[in-house]
Amino acid sequence: MPADIPDIVIGRLPIYLRALTRLAEEGQEVTSSHELGQLLGISSAQIRKDLSHFGGFGKQGTGYQIDFLVEQLRQVLKVNRDWEVALVGAGDLGRAIAHYKGFKDRGFHICCVFDSAADKVGKKLGEFTIQSTDNAAKVIAERKIRLAMIAVPAQQAQAVADMLIEAGVRAILNYAPISLNVPEDVHVQYIDPVVHMQRMTYYLTP
Amino acid sequence: MPADIPDIVIGRLPIYLRALTRLAEEGQEVTSSHELGQLLGISSAQIRKDLSHFGGFGKQGTGYQIDFLVEQLRQVLKVNRDWEVALVGAGDLGRAIAHYKGFKDRGFHICCVFDSAADKVGKKLGEFTIQSTDNAAKVIAERKIRLAMIAVPAQQAQAVADMLIEAGVRAILNYAPISLNVPEDVHVQYIDPVVHMQRMTYYLTP
Repeated sequence: MPADIPDIVIGRLPIYLRALTRLAEEGQEVTSSHELGQLLGISSAQIRKDLSHFGGFGKQGTGYQIDFLVEQLRQVLKVNRDWEVALVGAGDLGRAIAHYKGFKDRGFHICCVFDSAADKVGKKLGEFTIQSTDNAAKVIAERKIRLAMIAVPAQQAQAVADMLIEAGVRAILNYAPISLNVPEDVHVQYIDPVVHMQRMTYYLTP
Repeated sequence: MPADIPDIVIGRLPIYLRALTRLAEEGQEVTSSHELGQLLGISSAQIRKDLSHFGGFGKQGTGYQIDFLVEQLRQVLKVNRDWEVALVGAGDLGRAIAHYKGFKDRGFHICCVFDSAADKVGKKLGEFTIQSTDNAAKVIAERKIRLAMIAVPAQQAQAVADMLIEAGVRAILNYAPISLNVPEDVHVQYIDPVVHMQRMTYYLTP
């Protein structure tokens, strides 16, 4: 595994993987950086450069074998295995996340759901029984869970993140609309659709 | 309004706005690029540089007046007004989006919900009556809707995007796990939580 791959390159690999998986599902066996570039709106030179970080995925002129490239990308991204994920927050948003099939289909298994509200603890949420957030640290440490999703109100998110990290979590998908302070060895990604919308209105003519 | 602001700067402005709005809600009146940087994990020099694109929001040494900066950012991002948004897709994901209060709270009003499934059309979804996607182009053109969210399966997303753009939509928040091909004057942002998760597993020690 090569070191020092820029994070921005890593960020594009799941996009490549998603497009390649789709081509494979449609029965296609070979693709090119040109075709991928057209599909993704990324230059073919950029794609070739990104993939060259990981060795020779394709031969000049013959294109990429899709199945092989998919397997290599899955290995690089460490998604050629399943991951357990803890979910904190069982409100409207947490419920939607717990019901979203896309995670399981792509190897992320929500294994436990926590909430701090006494009226939620013990209730069922789909296949899960909601547990008290007070139990989260113990469960996460015991199961060696490294990934978590936060779907609590903004004012609780930092305290929840601190607790998760203390228990061993090293990657957080944060749905709370607030930036988290985390140690350097912890990774955070954000989902805040309003931020995406506001980024686009800048360009609109009212 | 200054021209030629790099898109990556525009992308950070909603993050600044979110943090500043939160500080204001907590009763704080003045902040600094240093404090914002600490909150957001962005260097204070970067923050000063980003904000300098839009003129003098703060005076050297005295910090930023939060209310003033919030208003300026809202104006720059054109979110000092409400926007109507069309939602296409009333499955599990579309339902969660329609129920999410965060959009309305921050000025994005979902005004109509479309689905192509005959068994969904005419049914209520919260305050909305689901309309046939066949009507979407007409409604969008009549109401001059410029923003839309796509929450349909991947294989339908491109056709839906083409229809929306033809009807006048210029900004799309795409929840379908597929990259869209759009004209240069149309903006697309993506929400695919699995992509964010895969970007983090790269860094994890199994």
